[in-house]
Amino acid sequence: MRSFFKVKRAEDIFESLGDIKPSGTESVPIVDALGRVLAREIKSNEDLPGFQRSTVDGYAVSAKDTFGSSENLPTPFNIIGEVRMGEIPNFGLKRGECALISTGGMLPKGADAVVMIEYSQMVGDRVVEISRPVSTLENVILPDDDVKRGQIVLQKGIPLRPQDLGVLAALGIYQIDVFTKPRAAIISTGEEVVDISQRPKPGQIRDINSYTLGGLCIKAGVEPIYLGITGDRFDDLKLLIEKGMSQADVLLLSGGSSVGTRDFTLDAFSSLEAVEIVAHGVSISPGKPTIIAKKENKTLWGLPGHPVSAMIIFDVFIRWLFDRLCGCSSPAEYTDHTIEAELDRNIESASGREDYIRVKLRNLEGSWLATPIPGKSGLISTMVEADGVVRIDMNTEGLYAGEKVKVRLF
Amino acid sequence: MRSFFKVKRAEDIFESLGDIKPSGTESVPIVDALGRVLAREIKSNEDLPGFQRSTVDGYAVSAKDTFGSSENLPTPFNIIGEVRMGEIPNFGLKRGECALISTGGMLPKGADAVVMIEYSQMVGDRVVEISRPVSTLENVILPDDDVKRGQIVLQKGIPLRPQDLGVLAALGIYQIDVFTKPRAAIISTGEEVVDISQRPKPGQIRDINSYTLGGLCIKAGVEPIYLGITGDRFDDLKLLIEKGMSQADVLLLSGGSSVGTRDFTLDAFSSLEAVEIVAHGVSISPGKPTIIAKKENKTLWGLPGHPVSAMIIFDVFIRWLFDRLCGCSSPAEYTDHTIEAELDRNIESASGREDYIRVKLRNLEGSWLATPIPGKSGLISTMVEADGVVRIDMNTEGLYAGEKVKVRLF
Repeated sequence: MRSFFKVKRAEDIFESLGDIKPSGTESVPIVDALGRVLAREIKSNEDLPGFQRSTVDGYAVSAKDTFGSSENLPTPFNIIGEVRMGEIPNFGLKRGECALISTGGMLPKGADAVVMIEYSQMVGDRVVEISRPVSTLENVILPDDDVKRGQIVLQKGIPLRPQDLGVLAALGIYQIDVFTKPRAAIISTGEEVVDISQRPKPGQIRDINSYTLGGLCIKAGVEPIYLGITGDRFDDLKLLIEKGMSQADVLLLSGGSSVGTRDFTLDAFSSLEAVEIVAHGVSISPGKPTIIAKKENKTLWGLPGHPVSAMIIFDVFIRWLFDRLCGCSSPAEYTDHTIEAELDRNIESASGREDYIRVKLRNLEGSWLATPIPGKSGLISTMVEADGVVRIDMNTEGLYAGEKVKVRLF
Repeated sequence: MRSFFKVKRAEDIFESLGDIKPSGTESVPIVDALGRVLAREIKSNEDLPGFQRSTVDGYAVSAKDTFGSSENLPTPFNIIGEVRMGEIPNFGLKRGECALISTGGMLPKGADAVVMIEYSQMVGDRVVEISRPVSTLENVILPDDDVKRGQIVLQKGIPLRPQDLGVLAALGIYQIDVFTKPRAAIISTGEEVVDISQRPKPGQIRDINSYTLGGLCIKAGVEPIYLGITGDRFDDLKLLIEKGMSQADVLLLSGGSSVGTRDFTLDAFSSLEAVEIVAHGVSISPGKPTIIAKKENKTLWGLPGHPVSAMIIFDVFIRWLFDRLCGCSSPAEYTDHTIEAELDRNIESASGREDYIRVKLRNLEGSWLATPIPGKSGLISTMVEADGVVRIDMNTEGLYAGEKVKVRLF
């Protein structure tokens, strides 16, 4: 066994990984841009909607002509025309005149407000009585009410939401620059691991980690590249790692939960040019035997072979990494989907490490109860049963039943 | 204006829409199955891992041989071999014998526990001293500890998570039946609406709703089919609706915020064979002028033209509909991503309708404050500024600053 074993705390690892950046930008149509991260701020070149619009169905008027109107003393107006949708009205209003207008229609010259149709009464073919005064600009959207020319409508570094696509459409921007989607090369190692299309012999197991890690990548907006399984031949492993590094921003190697295979992963990482070992072991449970290395903007991860441990390490570190690789600027705290729940039994935890406890949730009269799920980190079924995880920090020796905890859902 | 106007409450609409089902199932590889909804329960045909595995690096032993061992009085064992990963050990243990084993290795015959390497000391070439007793099955996973043959590992109707893909991989299931992805045909109407590639003339606006609705569909796991914009010609509209209905499970028509266009949408829906009008108006603000129709398992939505209103109606009704069309059985309550916040000012609300208020969030010393965003429902920029919505129910006339509210994030 090696003497060299630098177990690191999570915050030290985040610091060592330093300033991770997206690898580039690309231009995509907005219909394909949901969830992609904007690579430049978007500034408007125009006012929106660009003209005075009615927000109701009714009569365009000059507000001052309606002053004093009431149900008892309605004001008669001559209807001189109807605003056609999508067109500039080819008439203007004089004193005592009005025009029929629909929601979204453009106000004619001379009009500065709209009376809702509910407050009008036809009294002749071309005459309507208005029974309520309107104030100037009532029921009107001004030309720059939605967006002003020169206004920054979207900031660089935000993942695009449906409404963000909407404002881009409104401005006529149908193609935008987003950060390149990061790519993660996924490798499983271990003589005992076989492809899922094979029937394992006694002593063998099917490759689980490629699929859980692939799913986690897709969920995080990262493209997985599945490089398959390699056994315990050093040259094969090194070659596959080099292939992964040439195609991807991140290399996720899993397996190697035994000391021998861990050393083997460490040797393979160390043998690559310009690769620096960031951590050999992390103070997190499950997941301690994790190896982290770095080569410029690229990172290499030797994840534990146990599927639960690999998922926890992903959740703690690799989501953090992906946020940065995706170009998200200051990811909002609430993007972590957590709910508050009450523990329904005690949890023990060793101090000196962060513990991540799988929990199942159930709703009891509107409140959430979290039940810890026991089971070894080699059991994928415990993750299937779980709704989320609870983090117990380094300096806490456990939690009591009845305590409020934050459950991070997955 | 029409006298026929049946404004309905949300719960009545949910009831009228009845029992919505997915349109079919298809088989997909598990690497493409993240988020897809399982169409059949998955039962295991085998025990997992299928053999006795070690969970640590150390020595496979018969537990009873270690009883009484201590640091002061360690028990010597003869090392008779090493378990090779992925293979059945070609030896068995007799009394006083042990074998070197790595994490994940298969226990040899005669072994029923593993001593961690930390509690051993080599004292000769083939002899090791064990300084701590282990109990039977200590550091061992049993053949059916993860999954038992015949056990249901995944229920029908769940959206697949990364760990669910993992358990499928573990069982060698690389292709699964999921419900067909629903499809939604999207149409924008209105003489004033132009394609986003065009420069609008005064009185015209670019099509926003196709893009916000398309984004909302994708986010909900539904495939949008963009059918473009149609003006105010009845036959064109009817033809486009029929095209949409033939290709999709749901038709989302937006625009028609004016009374005239609303009537026009209603006429077009009514003119289709076997279509039943479910609601003409909903008691929700913004979004009241919504028309809902139904034809067997398919639904037709005449959404308001105002982008905010269309998004709110989507959030209230169409997400609900999509959950069912996707085949999600009893969607968990916590799948709505909400956070609790404190209102920082009063909100008024008319009783007799549900109000949806856009809010912006900010974090103040660990708690969330929600600020209502004023602005007309025609302004897409207000949705860009918002982080979520707060619902005020029918029987509440408003909320006070300081009240706790649930903010649904989007």
